[in-house]
Amino acid sequence: MNKPSASLKLPQVATTADATLEAELRRKLDNKTKPLGALGKLESLALQIGLIQQTTTLAFDAPQIVVFAADHGIADEGVSAYPQAVTVQMVLNMMRGGAAVNVLARQHGFGLTLVDAGVASAIPDEADPVPASSAVLLRRKIGFGTRNMARGPAMTGAQALSALGAGMDIVNHLPGNVMAFGEMGIGNTSSAALLLSRLCNVQLDDAVGRGTGLNDAQLEHKLRVLFDVSRKHRDAKTGLAVLAAMGGFEIAMMAGAMVQAAALRRVILVDGFIAGAAALVAREMRPHVTDYMVFTHRSAEVGHRLMLIHLQGQPLLDLEMRLGEGTGALVAWPLLQSAAHLMNEMATFESAGVSQQNEASAPPSATATPV
Amino acid sequence: MNKPSASLKLPQVATTADATLEAELRRKLDNKTKPLGALGKLESLALQIGLIQQTTTLAFDAPQIVVFAADHGIADEGVSAYPQAVTVQMVLNMMRGGAAVNVLARQHGFGLTLVDAGVASAIPDEADPVPASSAVLLRRKIGFGTRNMARGPAMTGAQALSALGAGMDIVNHLPGNVMAFGEMGIGNTSSAALLLSRLCNVQLDDAVGRGTGLNDAQLEHKLRVLFDVSRKHRDAKTGLAVLAAMGGFEIAMMAGAMVQAAALRRVILVDGFIAGAAALVAREMRPHVTDYMVFTHRSAEVGHRLMLIHLQGQPLLDLEMRLGEGTGALVAWPLLQSAAHLMNEMATFESAGVSQQNEASAPPSATATPV
Repeated sequence: MNKPSASLKLPQVATTADATLEAELRRKLDNKTKPLGALGKLESLALQIGLIQQTTTLAFDAPQIVVFAADHGIADEGVSAYPQAVTVQMVLNMMRGGAAVNVLARQHGFGLTLVDAGVASAIPDEADPVPASSAVLLRRKIGFGTRNMARGPAMTGAQALSALGAGMDIVNHLPGNVMAFGEMGIGNTSSAALLLSRLCNVQLDDAVGRGTGLNDAQLEHKLRVLFDVSRKHRDAKTGLAVLAAMGGFEIAMMAGAMVQAAALRRVILVDGFIAGAAALVAREMRPHVTDYMVFTHRSAEVGHRLMLIHLQGQPLLDLEMRLGEGTGALVAWPLLQSAAHLMNEMATFESAGVSQQNEASAPPSATATPV
Repeated sequence: MNKPSASLKLPQVATTADATLEAELRRKLDNKTKPLGALGKLESLALQIGLIQQTTTLAFDAPQIVVFAADHGIADEGVSAYPQAVTVQMVLNMMRGGAAVNVLARQHGFGLTLVDAGVASAIPDEADPVPASSAVLLRRKIGFGTRNMARGPAMTGAQALSALGAGMDIVNHLPGNVMAFGEMGIGNTSSAALLLSRLCNVQLDDAVGRGTGLNDAQLEHKLRVLFDVSRKHRDAKTGLAVLAAMGGFEIAMMAGAMVQAAALRRVILVDGFIAGAAALVAREMRPHVTDYMVFTHRSAEVGHRLMLIHLQGQPLLDLEMRLGEGTGALVAWPLLQSAAHLMNEMATFESAGVSQQNEASAPPSATATPV
């Protein structure tokens, strides 16, 4: 397979590191009327957003969520608790506004784009989103589901590149400076576990979990199937090769979308286990992409804990969610808004006439030291 | 000291337990288009809110935050990193709209009531809140700070009862069905640690932490001071006696407010370490009050972890915040809204035509079983 730069114009992604700006952001936070560091992770979040946006006055504009849906040939092997038909059924549910992601996108005022990245059946024309769902459907089908990776590569190299390119293109044509990405695809925890295992050199049995709710025997079966898959594709090593061998169309498209969003210096809200696998793929291609990523939650899917460690991500939430669709990202969103509002609007010690901390040696109620 | 029922009309608080309603709520959640339990803690939250509101259609109305401010005589012993003057300075900052709680109350549309429960200095008339702060100031000063509990009881029994009554009264005259409570008071982690230690039989050195930011030597000093205080008041055992001996006016008032809010079947958002101490006091008087409490976050204050275990509280957030003012409660608020929206608005498997889980024994893609 060609390197992406050869056949795909994968944009450059710059680091957000900027010592001068970081010091300025830190100073601004430390002058707010609160004990040093008392806002905890909201402070590191404000700092990260400032570095992404290259300013000390944070602002969000037209936040978007894109949900990539696709099917997986590996579903034929009985690795999911749900039948494959659920993928298209859930896409239709989202188009009618009834899925969890619709509810949360409405709550938080996110624009919602649904993408058919490779659902196994045709999505009928008349199923275009009803007005109440406020969703847009983009038809970017790479194939009718991936091939069964127990028998061969999930996709061709050309398909992987097409999917990456489609993800980039979708982001390029969406407004705003915040992008959340979600997914829907029966069988996709299998792909995500395989990507985690191969790209991070994690033991497969530490990466594989119950997905949408396998029982013990089903989990045992899934693990056996995925061991065989992993062995079959043992020669796939690079990000692109691993993606083609064991990935999914929604994961590939999301990886491309993440790279493009970072190239445009947008804040990326990373959801759970599947989105994390896309983040791993994106990082293989563009290492600085994680500078732009906010890891929104720790999923209850067992491999996600390890995945976050490999991504060096500190998740904002740990609510035992494991739904996908981008729901974790949306649930965490108000924390980013809080971080921005606090950074922009809180008074300083000086402006509010509030005394600073006592000197370590001074008697307690004596010399208040205003800034 | 009299029992509160003798001299204070402390209302009854009923349990929210209702097996029939709980089963109905569970059924409604399980029929939503998502794997069983996939919304994690949001599902238990929706369940709790349903039990409080006695309905399967959740609704919030006019959410309120009340911030109780008071001073502590123990500050004279050098137990805080900040001078006592900061309490009134922060009240003025809140009245001008510049504190973290103002920013977050604006973000989330909470009504903000500031209460002078016992600040050590007079709050000048001309300092009434400016329009931009949208805050209301209630003057309910029980005293100019508590007495130094290293020398005698922090307050009289009559003061404790007055404070509880004032808290009840304040809630009684506020609208809405959601109440968040915050506090401001230099020295109040000392009171909270002592209440935790005595009421839950926790070792004092496990309860005492750095508060607003003590260094090692200062923490050592705080611990020595509080050991002496605890020994001095070793005979205080009941909730009210402990509150009078080692409590604070803001903690007492918040405890009364919590009992009243529960009696009115309102959802109570419990903030961090100080609010947790008030919750302990409220629970001593009315055990079912915790049914109405949502533990919004785990504070970075070291004793809070143990406190939550004793309160049997599962915190929603763990963001290493330790600011007080009710900031943790407000930051967590959108999660309650999400829980309610998801419960009310998500489609069911039946209404959306989505297939249910495979039977454990059935082949994977064969018999989808619609509800």
